[in-house]
Amino acid sequence: MSIPREKLRWNGWGWTDAADPLAGRPEALAWIAATLGMGARLPDTPAMALGAITVPPPRLPPALLARLEACVPAGAVVTSTRERAFHARGKSYHDLLHLRAGRMDALPDAVVYPETPDQALAVIQWAEETGAAVVPYGGGSSVVGGVEAWAGAGRVVVSVDMTRMDKLLATDPVSLTATAEAGIYGPALEAALASHGLTLGHYPQSFELSTLGGWIAARGAGQQSNRYGKAETWLIGAELATPRGLWQSAGFPASAAGPDLTRLIAGSEGTLGLITKATFKVHQAPEARDYRAYLMPDFESGASAIRAIVQSETPVAALRLSDPDETRFFRAFAAARKPTTWRDGIERRVLGWMGVGARPCLLLAGFEGGSDQTRWSRRAARALIRRAGGVAVGRRPADRWYAGRFHGPYLRDPLMDRGIGVDTLETATFWSSAPELYGAVHSALQTAMREHAASESARGIVMAHISHSYPDGASLYFTFIFPRKLSDEVGQWRAIKRAATDAIVRHGGTISHHHGVGVDHAAWLKGEKGPIGMEVLRAVKRALDPANVMNPGKLLE
Amino acid sequence: MSIPREKLRWNGWGWTDAADPLAGRPEALAWIAATLGMGARLPDTPAMALGAITVPPPRLPPALLARLEACVPAGAVVTSTRERAFHARGKSYHDLLHLRAGRMDALPDAVVYPETPDQALAVIQWAEETGAAVVPYGGGSSVVGGVEAWAGAGRVVVSVDMTRMDKLLATDPVSLTATAEAGIYGPALEAALASHGLTLGHYPQSFELSTLGGWIAARGAGQQSNRYGKAETWLIGAELATPRGLWQSAGFPASAAGPDLTRLIAGSEGTLGLITKATFKVHQAPEARDYRAYLMPDFESGASAIRAIVQSETPVAALRLSDPDETRFFRAFAAARKPTTWRDGIERRVLGWMGVGARPCLLLAGFEGGSDQTRWSRRAARALIRRAGGVAVGRRPADRWYAGRFHGPYLRDPLMDRGIGVDTLETATFWSSAPELYGAVHSALQTAMREHAASESARGIVMAHISHSYPDGASLYFTFIFPRKLSDEVGQWRAIKRAATDAIVRHGGTISHHHGVGVDHAAWLKGEKGPIGMEVLRAVKRALDPANVMNPGKLLE
Repeated sequence: MSIPREKLRWNGWGWTDAADPLAGRPEALAWIAATLGMGARLPDTPAMALGAITVPPPRLPPALLARLEACVPAGAVVTSTRERAFHARGKSYHDLLHLRAGRMDALPDAVVYPETPDQALAVIQWAEETGAAVVPYGGGSSVVGGVEAWAGAGRVVVSVDMTRMDKLLATDPVSLTATAEAGIYGPALEAALASHGLTLGHYPQSFELSTLGGWIAARGAGQQSNRYGKAETWLIGAELATPRGLWQSAGFPASAAGPDLTRLIAGSEGTLGLITKATFKVHQAPEARDYRAYLMPDFESGASAIRAIVQSETPVAALRLSDPDETRFFRAFAAARKPTTWRDGIERRVLGWMGVGARPCLLLAGFEGGSDQTRWSRRAARALIRRAGGVAVGRRPADRWYAGRFHGPYLRDPLMDRGIGVDTLETATFWSSAPELYGAVHSALQTAMREHAASESARGIVMAHISHSYPDGASLYFTFIFPRKLSDEVGQWRAIKRAATDAIVRHGGTISHHHGVGVDHAAWLKGEKGPIGMEVLRAVKRALDPANVMNPGKLLE
Repeated sequence: MSIPREKLRWNGWGWTDAADPLAGRPEALAWIAATLGMGARLPDTPAMALGAITVPPPRLPPALLARLEACVPAGAVVTSTRERAFHARGKSYHDLLHLRAGRMDALPDAVVYPETPDQALAVIQWAEETGAAVVPYGGGSSVVGGVEAWAGAGRVVVSVDMTRMDKLLATDPVSLTATAEAGIYGPALEAALASHGLTLGHYPQSFELSTLGGWIAARGAGQQSNRYGKAETWLIGAELATPRGLWQSAGFPASAAGPDLTRLIAGSEGTLGLITKATFKVHQAPEARDYRAYLMPDFESGASAIRAIVQSETPVAALRLSDPDETRFFRAFAAARKPTTWRDGIERRVLGWMGVGARPCLLLAGFEGGSDQTRWSRRAARALIRRAGGVAVGRRPADRWYAGRFHGPYLRDPLMDRGIGVDTLETATFWSSAPELYGAVHSALQTAMREHAASESARGIVMAHISHSYPDGASLYFTFIFPRKLSDEVGQWRAIKRAATDAIVRHGGTISHHHGVGVDHAAWLKGEKGPIGMEVLRAVKRALDPANVMNPGKLLE
């Protein structure tokens, strides 16, 4: 069942009534302010209230609206200001800059909630006939502009919200597969699967408010991707409502019947059609779940440990390595809550004695599955971690991370309320390129934040982690925090983003490991796919959507 | 280095000087004859010698030939009868029926051996300009008509043999990746990798005489696919010489930068371009290799054991389950060599006492990797096999299979020499559909062989195995042996093939798990991909090869 929209923030992350995690934590704020060179008192930069914003009316003449309404059940076309504002953009820092400032330059003229594939098809056909654009909308959690409701000056845009198509349709406990409608949210999907003793195991940070269809459309990855795979690896087959009709992509455990076209649906980001249904691999709910924490002497040794584990093909659910600054940031941020204790001093001395040193890196290793296998894998992984110089620090830090693993995004809005910008970006590359790429992106971010600083004293923080790993390489995920340059926020963000993405491309990284392309990365896609690759993509687009109805401006510029 | 063509059979499998494995084995032949209802004396049906066949001359006017020769180094265009006959077709039973009878209806007008991607491009451009067709040729081991050198009445065909592009170009021992030219044969590739302590681990039955590019083009699978993956899973990126130029598909450990276009190259079967180079995942050469044999009470319990092992995600290199008839056939065939001993009787009684019964199924389980992991995995797998009713019968049968794992195809030619047809086909489906599909294909083969029998007494044998398994399903591989209906051999084969493929499709199987589509399965592809899927495939084809130069008639009819 769809989440009532008033329960969700239209211009920020998560639940409307979520508590401000920074309220009542003056020490943490003081620590951040000092670290960012912002002085003792942080600025007050609240978001505009929707009521205070001038929202242009929908550009849908009554006759056009009536024809759209005829495509779906009564009440399934909504044109209220809040619904339109809610569906205007996704949840990127860049999106929030616009929404919080009341710049409603991207805005759907209507929001449509289809309940069946045929209704989705009818809406698409309506759009093709009337020249409107369709922006597919799942959880709306895109951080790359993937659901931006803009399709060129003057063009009518409807946001097609899939969250009423949210049923688990079938499970096959023998083959460990399931089929569900694409608009189902993460928690509803896992609850439905759990009632059959099953799990998909796809837990991105956006899990609470992202959907099956969105995961597939953007080739998402869950935090336990080592075990459960990335969207394109657990996806077996999908149903896509396209301007050319309903496409059921073939799905088999494996096949050699020509190219696997399901792989074109994964990553299509709504540009080829609306994902209405998907069949995917599931797992038996794990018998055991065991997460452990280790401290590594440095990032390199931590990365070596991860590489050794995945290359030895030891079954593991998650491996997560924070760089020294991320390790220190979360430690400091947590420590700011309470005064330093005598235990901290002892801990530091013991770790020093064990060779971990002054700038340790936190490594989390999670194991899920059968009890025997989990135990065996944990021991095998521990041996490799120790060989790389790691020191076990028990379950506590790992369990704390696990408990708070969806909380990160809730920090951004209150930071933005206080003049602080925070954004993330990510890539993946081969192990042999990773150290250089890490250094280059780190320094590109630092340089760009310095060059576009809010003030002379302002400083940015860059921190990074490896959270998805493969025998041949890993993802690198960067978080950067900086004082907002209130006079030119979008320009500041764009310059930082450009510098980092250029560095990624220059050093052999993909422009995205799991966020997707959307609008923000579209300019770099040509370089990654090459002219012939782009021609192939455009040919597929033309075949399915010759009138460019589906999510124009995303993926393909 | 390319294998000199005179060392290879042009109209059969393997080395010209390979011994006849049936020579001097009258008991085995007598046993087969009796089983097939063929009477005591098998017919004498040798292949025609090339010298006795009227081979039409090349249809290449001197000017055209000269322009083709200008594309490649001197001597790299060959028009000798043997080279043209060698490249006329692949190695399917259907191909051999034509070649052995001297029906040279498919025949290239020239064979070209490019040595660089630019030369490959030049040949393609020559073909586009002159209206000729290009048939990419790697090892030529296709069993689905994938290299049939025919492109419509009157159209000039050149077979482009890639085996002079056979160098390992780079290895990355940190990221465990390698890059090689696509024309490298299996043994040369593994030898080159082994000198770096690495392995790709892709060992199809055709390993000796198939190439990297062919594995990718047809989405092949090696016998250890559980550990090393199928071609499309180990492929990272490829270079494709297309009529639109050289396409380097992007390759990363993982990405969300739009759809993964490398997946369009895997399975493209030469219809989009010539694969000239590929980057792929490799493994450290395994520290340990341990293959064990078990007897299962029946096919169902064997399949359950495999399913339990793969669904528990126990690391395993290979799992191979023969059905009762395949188990019996190879036992009987081997036993025919020597008289029954007192040991056989004891063995049978012991197995009966252990509950394995009269129609046991042989299950092979192979483990490769680190010593500890191999040991742990073997124990975990053994427990699951025992739980399914299996009985360990030691290393011997498994080692025997391993030693002879490329020998199977050498049996076909001598059987064909003696009036016996043998063909194989395969599919993959979900575990929940597998039992019904197995029964349906089995009975379709039996019925078709009966309806198209060579004589009233003639009987066919059907046997099957599971050789590739996944958490959600498995491949089923059928071998069928029958007395050849010499009056209408192609018709007999076609009827059997059609009946089996129809049964596969009707029961939820893919038309191929690892052989590909070629000409033989093209008629069924439409059903599997659906009209929109086919439109997508055709759009990609049009974008890269508008003039239909590349392998016309394969994959897409």
